[in-house]
Amino acid sequence: MTHSITFLPHNRTVDAEPNQSLIRTAMEAGVHINASCGGTGVCGKCRILVETGQVEGGISEHLSEADREKGYRLACVARIASDCVIRVPMESQMDAGRLNARVTGRHMAKAVYSNVDELREDGLFIPPVEKIYLELDPAVEGDNQADVTRIINYLRLKHDEHRLTMNLDLIRKIPNLIREGDFKVTATIVRPVRKDGKNEIVNIEPNNTSERNFGIAVDVGTTTVYGMVIDLHTGAVPAQQGDFNSQISYGEDVISRIIFAEKGEGLATLQSKVVGTINTIIKKILKKAGVSKKEVTTITLAGNSTMTQLLLNINPTYIRKDPYVPASILYPPFHAKEIGIELAEHSIALIYPGVSSYVGGDIIAGIMAAGMYRSEELTLYMDIGTNAEIVIGHKDWMVCTAASAGPAFEGGGVKFGMRAIKGAIEDVSINPETFEPMIVTVDDEKAKGICGSGLITLAARLLDTGIIDSRGKFNRSLETQRIRQTEDIWEYVLVYEKEAGIDRDITITEPDLDNLIRAKGAMYSAALTLLDEIGLGVQDIEKIILAGGFGSYVDLESAITIGLLPEIDPGRVIYLGNGSLLGCKINTLTNAFRRDVANVVNMMTNFELASTPSYMDHYMSALFLPHTELNYFPKVKKRLELLHR
Amino acid sequence: MTHSITFLPHNRTVDAEPNQSLIRTAMEAGVHINASCGGTGVCGKCRILVETGQVEGGISEHLSEADREKGYRLACVARIASDCVIRVPMESQMDAGRLNARVTGRHMAKAVYSNVDELREDGLFIPPVEKIYLELDPAVEGDNQADVTRIINYLRLKHDEHRLTMNLDLIRKIPNLIREGDFKVTATIVRPVRKDGKNEIVNIEPNNTSERNFGIAVDVGTTTVYGMVIDLHTGAVPAQQGDFNSQISYGEDVISRIIFAEKGEGLATLQSKVVGTINTIIKKILKKAGVSKKEVTTITLAGNSTMTQLLLNINPTYIRKDPYVPASILYPPFHAKEIGIELAEHSIALIYPGVSSYVGGDIIAGIMAAGMYRSEELTLYMDIGTNAEIVIGHKDWMVCTAASAGPAFEGGGVKFGMRAIKGAIEDVSINPETFEPMIVTVDDEKAKGICGSGLITLAARLLDTGIIDSRGKFNRSLETQRIRQTEDIWEYVLVYEKEAGIDRDITITEPDLDNLIRAKGAMYSAALTLLDEIGLGVQDIEKIILAGGFGSYVDLESAITIGLLPEIDPGRVIYLGNGSLLGCKINTLTNAFRRDVANVVNMMTNFELASTPSYMDHYMSALFLPHTELNYFPKVKKRLELLHR
Repeated sequence: MTHSITFLPHNRTVDAEPNQSLIRTAMEAGVHINASCGGTGVCGKCRILVETGQVEGGISEHLSEADREKGYRLACVARIASDCVIRVPMESQMDAGRLNARVTGRHMAKAVYSNVDELREDGLFIPPVEKIYLELDPAVEGDNQADVTRIINYLRLKHDEHRLTMNLDLIRKIPNLIREGDFKVTATIVRPVRKDGKNEIVNIEPNNTSERNFGIAVDVGTTTVYGMVIDLHTGAVPAQQGDFNSQISYGEDVISRIIFAEKGEGLATLQSKVVGTINTIIKKILKKAGVSKKEVTTITLAGNSTMTQLLLNINPTYIRKDPYVPASILYPPFHAKEIGIELAEHSIALIYPGVSSYVGGDIIAGIMAAGMYRSEELTLYMDIGTNAEIVIGHKDWMVCTAASAGPAFEGGGVKFGMRAIKGAIEDVSINPETFEPMIVTVDDEKAKGICGSGLITLAARLLDTGIIDSRGKFNRSLETQRIRQTEDIWEYVLVYEKEAGIDRDITITEPDLDNLIRAKGAMYSAALTLLDEIGLGVQDIEKIILAGGFGSYVDLESAITIGLLPEIDPGRVIYLGNGSLLGCKINTLTNAFRRDVANVVNMMTNFELASTPSYMDHYMSALFLPHTELNYFPKVKKRLELLHR
Repeated sequence: MTHSITFLPHNRTVDAEPNQSLIRTAMEAGVHINASCGGTGVCGKCRILVETGQVEGGISEHLSEADREKGYRLACVARIASDCVIRVPMESQMDAGRLNARVTGRHMAKAVYSNVDELREDGLFIPPVEKIYLELDPAVEGDNQADVTRIINYLRLKHDEHRLTMNLDLIRKIPNLIREGDFKVTATIVRPVRKDGKNEIVNIEPNNTSERNFGIAVDVGTTTVYGMVIDLHTGAVPAQQGDFNSQISYGEDVISRIIFAEKGEGLATLQSKVVGTINTIIKKILKKAGVSKKEVTTITLAGNSTMTQLLLNINPTYIRKDPYVPASILYPPFHAKEIGIELAEHSIALIYPGVSSYVGGDIIAGIMAAGMYRSEELTLYMDIGTNAEIVIGHKDWMVCTAASAGPAFEGGGVKFGMRAIKGAIEDVSINPETFEPMIVTVDDEKAKGICGSGLITLAARLLDTGIIDSRGKFNRSLETQRIRQTEDIWEYVLVYEKEAGIDRDITITEPDLDNLIRAKGAMYSAALTLLDEIGLGVQDIEKIILAGGFGSYVDLESAITIGLLPEIDPGRVIYLGNGSLLGCKINTLTNAFRRDVANVVNMMTNFELASTPSYMDHYMSALFLPHTELNYFPKVKKRLELLHR
């Protein structure tokens, strides 16, 4: 249940969850309220008047007794308890006229989910591993066929199952198992990718266990690993969980991990570390879901090419060395135990195939989850991070590339940059008159730094308000103490020490902005280069899919404003969320997509930017906010003209 | 090179190997010479005169100086050195008139070999594991496809190879291997049974090793294990070797092995024992052939169902328990190392499928080797041993069964029975006038006992000479000291203690003969029951194939005389030898047959004699020499009438 919150005098209404802070709600509505302390009631600037409805909290020493009685509260510590009408007083709000120049409020996430009912309707709800209950006739005189033959014949005659195989380990167990269940058993069958391939029986259990069939999906990210349990009988997800990839202590990015893997036992160490993380997650989600290990018949994993090779204990050296060769694209199904995953012996692991050293299985998984490979619309798929992967195409063709954006989007190379954890500034508004900021932090803690999505929004607002120019340089002539020069470096103070969660002022510097511009320039020019190579332009893109943890949080309007993303109708942008995890989920639900995966990988043409001459030109042109060629961004151009008139 | 030896006054000529003893040569020619000491010059009865030609040895204190000068020698210790004419003096020979009543001399082995040239001509020389040399283009900028993809694409484009797979273990090694060979590598590919199945790449080696591709064939017998190395490039067999199955110390027959396997670590013990024997043989034959382990790409093994399950570490309990259920018929290919066979990681093991608990992979292998499944002639395939397996049919249908013959054919249940090892009496002739025997032993050692084939010939000769009647009872009225009663048991003395290799007289007793009759009765009636079940008679059989170690040594005429085998023109009988080993060999040479194997197994109808009511009647009628129904054996009937006239 959500509440409807209306802000006056803007007369803008948004829905908000109960208990959400008013300042976060205002940010979502595109309503500026001065607030620089990160929502902890310290600065006392965010006074608002509750005209109707109920809020909880919001009372502070910064408010007089009289104000409190009138209904004034501090927006940052007031929490929504009902539908409300909130008036933002003159001193707390920004200039309304200018405000309206903003495109919209926050562009809300429009995630695509793999819908089980839809799959079922289309006859595609065919998990890659199925369970079938068999009521066999017991062996008697006159019918003494071999135990395995009895099982295979039953499946052939009663279930029209053909091309069945079984490995030696399982055959060994059959004579006892089949009699333990008095010839009533449940068979676990792994489906082939090709319809005419072999169906492998991987387990036989006494009695009927066919209703208990679970899969696990795992996104193996360089930084984080996410897992979910999927009920293969209903399609439900009873549990999911994320954790940091414990390889992190051996290097933050894939290159440093590869270098570590090249030394001594490095590869084995990294392999056991990531499997350790996966096992920890599996343990937690199985416990939460009330599922036992032996009930998990399949696990699908996706990661970038380096993560995949490290997980599978494959030397990744040649991924980082010119000409950047991965060991393999496709990997065969195998028993999860083989790589140390703590599941039952019969649990089959499926690995998402990649395309190249820098466009890996996580991207293919995302493309499968987003249904891009079935769409007729020309789509730009972007997974933004340290390494940004870009795919352009539709159901008939696809091209892809990867750009090294540098760590700016993940908080690296930025003075107060940090990951999107507690206290990270994730959203910013700046009063264009006073240049005072309004900030929102993760978990509403005192601000400690700026995360990637906050950085993008901050840069966009600095540009909107004329605090910086298109080269990312501060306007030295503005009358505000927040812009200052320290040790020859120009910066803008977001949060003063006394209101911060750290013992320094939190600022953004010109070098920070320079790094951000390089990062967004690399991304944008990679997309432009790809389009160029196939003879298309940015105007031809009909849909953008943003994937990855970062992609889910980035503010679309801000990203367009700084030229990270092409200018496009927000209705045409889809936030996929963790596409890699979703792709693993859908792979666990339907084998039909596994067949498509091979086709997608085959149709994909990979471009190495280093070998594509036009890339450097595109990159140089993209080192402006939003771009040298403003015609690529007509709306941004128009707005900036309006704002800076 | 052989020598031509003519015996006078019989005027019978046979070819003989140089250095063969004259007495063995006489036996083959059907020439009786009194000789009861087993060919060691002790009894001095086997005087012969060398009329022309050269023999070596044969001089003894039993010969006077004058005799020696005339050219007399002892046949048992005289060895052939040239073409000879040998006269058998009156006192050493049997009555010539009666002798001529014998059907022929020894029926010589007519083994069928798997002919590589024939396979090659028919385009069937396709080993299940092949090696292909690949000269890959090195990875460079602009061609940085994944290492595995590079290999697969090369095989696809240059060798028209499709549906290629590779397991994770191999993928792990590829990045280093491919560069070690500077992108020149040799791929080892396992062919699927079905043409549209997957081709699995199991190994990649640096440089060109494609000329060194070897297979191993192993017959895993209850008593003996035989192995051979096969050059998959030429089809040659550079080495072969047999050894006793070291499981023997845990039980002589399959039932006692199964009972041992049921206790504690019994199964694991038996598994490691037989693998130990196989490893010993492999080591020897590889050394002899000058082949290294890593050059062996495939090993095919065949055994009866119990041997197969013990080898694969599969509980065999239900094989011996009513209703006699084997674990499986077909087994998937696997890595030989998985069951402890000491070959390289990439060596693939193929197991011959069986049909039932008592018709196993050794029989199917024999049927494949004999080409029975491609023949239009109605064929009776028999593997005679403790458990005798019988298959009847041709290319369109086959029926099979197994009869428990008891251990008589392998020397069990017979007072002086023994295996066919040194000193075992393997051939016998009896003088119909004097009832004195002529014996030949294995390796011409002093006699220690009687092996299975010797027993059959002995029984036939006892019947021929009227020493026993058709019920196997001694003719108490014959005037010879060799027939006697000791402790209420009647027996015939084959070798007296002073001429024997043991410290007792070697005899054959009525209980021995009773056991033999039961054994041959079980065999023959099994065949008759099978024929009966399909509405055919013994006269419909067009060909007999005798397989197994025992089957290779049994004297055809003797076997027919006692009613072990149906009466048939000797030209229609084929001695296959070790059909199981030959079947493994052919499986290693051509994958085409592997496809046929599955068809053979599917077309085969198994009969359990215990559930076939007519069996007992047939069995009772077969407990006579040769049979109650003498019309089944018209020639034997006629000969016996002639001899006993």
